[in-house]
Amino acid sequence: MAKAKRCLITLTTDFGMEDGNVAVMKGVILGLNPHASIVDLSHDIPPQDIADAAHVLRRAYAYFPSGSIHVVVVDPGVGTERRPIAVKSAHAFYVAPDNGVLSYVLEELRNKGEEMRIVNLTNPAYWLPQVSNVFHGRDVFAPVAAHLSLGVEIEALGPEIDELVTLPPPRLEIHPAKITGEVTHVDHFGNLLTNISYSDLMLLGDSVTTKVGQTEISGLTITFAERQTGEPIAYIDSSGHLAIAVVDGSAQQLLRTQVGDLVVVEAHQEPSIQPEAL
Amino acid sequence: MAKAKRCLITLTTDFGMEDGNVAVMKGVILGLNPHASIVDLSHDIPPQDIADAAHVLRRAYAYFPSGSIHVVVVDPGVGTERRPIAVKSAHAFYVAPDNGVLSYVLEELRNKGEEMRIVNLTNPAYWLPQVSNVFHGRDVFAPVAAHLSLGVEIEALGPEIDELVTLPPPRLEIHPAKITGEVTHVDHFGNLLTNISYSDLMLLGDSVTTKVGQTEISGLTITFAERQTGEPIAYIDSSGHLAIAVVDGSAQQLLRTQVGDLVVVEAHQEPSIQPEAL
Amino acid sequence: MAKAKRCLITLTTDFGMEDGNVAVMKGVILGLNPHASIVDLSHDIPPQDIADAAHVLRRAYAYFPSGSIHVVVVDPGVGTERRPIAVKSAHAFYVAPDNGVLSYVLEELRNKGEEMRIVNLTNPAYWLPQVSNVFHGRDVFAPVAAHLSLGVEIEALGPEIDELVTLPPPRLEIHPAKITGEVTHVDHFGNLLTNISYSDLMLLGDSVTTKVGQTEISGLTITFAERQTGEPIAYIDSSGHLAIAVVDGSAQQLLRTQVGDLVVVEAHQEPSIQPEAL
Repeated sequence: MAKAKRCLITLTTDFGMEDGNVAVMKGVILGLNPHASIVDLSHDIPPQDIADAAHVLRRAYAYFPSGSIHVVVVDPGVGTERRPIAVKSAHAFYVAPDNGVLSYVLEELRNKGEEMRIVNLTNPAYWLPQVSNVFHGRDVFAPVAAHLSLGVEIEALGPEIDELVTLPPPRLEIHPAKITGEVTHVDHFGNLLTNISYSDLMLLGDSVTTKVGQTEISGLTITFAERQTGEPIAYIDSSGHLAIAVVDGSAQQLLRTQVGDLVVVEAHQEPSIQPEAL
Repeated sequence: MAKAKRCLITLTTDFGMEDGNVAVMKGVILGLNPHASIVDLSHDIPPQDIADAAHVLRRAYAYFPSGSIHVVVVDPGVGTERRPIAVKSAHAFYVAPDNGVLSYVLEELRNKGEEMRIVNLTNPAYWLPQVSNVFHGRDVFAPVAAHLSLGVEIEALGPEIDELVTLPPPRLEIHPAKITGEVTHVDHFGNLLTNISYSDLMLLGDSVTTKVGQTEISGLTITFAERQTGEPIAYIDSSGHLAIAVVDGSAQQLLRTQVGDLVVVEAHQEPSIQPEAL
Repeated sequence: MAKAKRCLITLTTDFGMEDGNVAVMKGVILGLNPHASIVDLSHDIPPQDIADAAHVLRRAYAYFPSGSIHVVVVDPGVGTERRPIAVKSAHAFYVAPDNGVLSYVLEELRNKGEEMRIVNLTNPAYWLPQVSNVFHGRDVFAPVAAHLSLGVEIEALGPEIDELVTLPPPRLEIHPAKITGEVTHVDHFGNLLTNISYSDLMLLGDSVTTKVGQTEISGLTITFAERQTGEPIAYIDSSGHLAIAVVDGSAQQLLRTQVGDLVVVEAHQEPSIQPEAL
């Protein structure tokens, strides 16, 4: 990746926007590279929820241009021996604590056969002069991202490493007539996103029943507008995975579900008359 | 508008910021035009509240430089037959679903006599290669805005159309001594914004009484600081319309009002001793 | 400061992001200077909470590059005789109402011996043509910041002034074995930030007890991860001040405390076995 193509930096944190801490990271970045373009991916990750950040990043990363630098700071272990790391893949860089927050992206990249180079951030030449125990987003991760955007090679940042901390994958069991997965994220609308991909779903044929908690939903809906207000629906979300919504309402509240709840999809016995999902 | 003057893109959605979906739209835009400048107009439109988005955009659009591209994605009909559209006016572009969300801006532009060109977005050459059923913000509207910012002519995006879906205008009745309007938006402070313009108000003379719910407010207040904490006041907001606030409090909560509630302004019989609104 | 080095503008307000008012300020700035880089410092200052904005700005300003322009609009006196001002220090500009919102930054700069020039914004040539009574952020402060970013000298904006409105400093009493301070801000995680600096704390020796409300905390913790979930801890925050947290919880809720509550730190009599704060 040429230097000129590395100017986009995304930030994902659990900091919220109210205290100015995200702004401080941007000040550090723009002080080092005034031409950096910074995009807030999310700053409303629930406090210390590494898995949620990992899911949010996995859903988003592929839509950023080649050379983007993704900084993720959900970092309950800040100041301990947990390692700060940077990863270079074929199309992007990732800068984060080594606590599993990159697990789902890196697994997807590995499944695509992408080569990766991972380094432990140990070279303080690319950090702020003073490093606090509680805000490595400002003191380590932001300046490292800025230096990468200026064309610094990842090898300069520290020694190469192989093994990273990895989150346990969300539960996924695929049987001939039944798939069991999990609610992996609840979105702004209260929709329940899952780890069951459309391609896995298709193994069940085009007529399925989805169960979450006490609710059973027949078939897949293509658009929200085709069902009635208050009706629970199963649909394929914008990342190509099964999701559950309540039309004009919050599935999280109305179906009393949360992240980690099981989602079971079963093939119908009888011939299908359900609409096909695109 | 020259190409160089089209680099500012605003985004208005009901997506919230926590899921990364707004960031994904920015990634798509910056992938196509790395020089685009993107401003978040609002991402906290209440879910599916087309009218609220229409009001927020109407209050804001005139303050952006000529050539700005306003993208609005409050889109309960996504994936159905509702049309995606783009509008070119004398000073700006608008990209949105054809569900009325541009109604109030376009009405204001028409009242100013501005010429407009409207197209139905049908040319997939300006979309992402794959279009989902649930996220046209990412797949259609963001790339179309990016292409416009690069200088693509609006005619290239699809065939010209005349008729758009239009929201019913909020109620407004103007009589010699009485104007009836509506609460059209509740702002961050709980202030009640209305559709009664200052120029209409002036028809009643400079001494008026404003009624909303059970509350009656005498006169117009020029600045918040001139009244006591907890006192309800009527004032002219920054868009030149009547608004109702409670000093240091939330009018929405304290006056138990909501969007759509009627607001009635009456001329005083007796000679006025109220301060004049500027 | 050369003109080219003045392109970063930060915005701090109590406007929230939902109404489009922050976006309108950005539209005004980018209309005057399309090359300005704008960073949201915070828009979630509690309504009219001048002191909170002053604390948030004081914690953040030093991390922005030289030549940055900090605009702060928490402005309950908008439209009254309160003066709009701009300040030029050695490294930055500040644009705000004269209501004390710059107090804590300016006090810190004065303590560092920085020279400052302060002007009353009276020259309407640098404002929008029409100035409302209720939104000087849009009509006065945003255009003034944009003109500064274009290289306008501060003297052009209005006459120099000496005295500013100043907030009372938060309580701070330093005795040989006891320091009394205040909770000055509650952050996104519910952590209680105080005005007791690490250098003041060190006067008490390396073994201290911190009291807030009914809670007594022994020693200083270096990292969150070294204590148990639910345990209250005292630590040095990223700005170098004493702070109080509950591990994996909200100290504000669990310790029933709020901004303004007293925090008392006392030296231990007995020899210390507490870990040393870095």
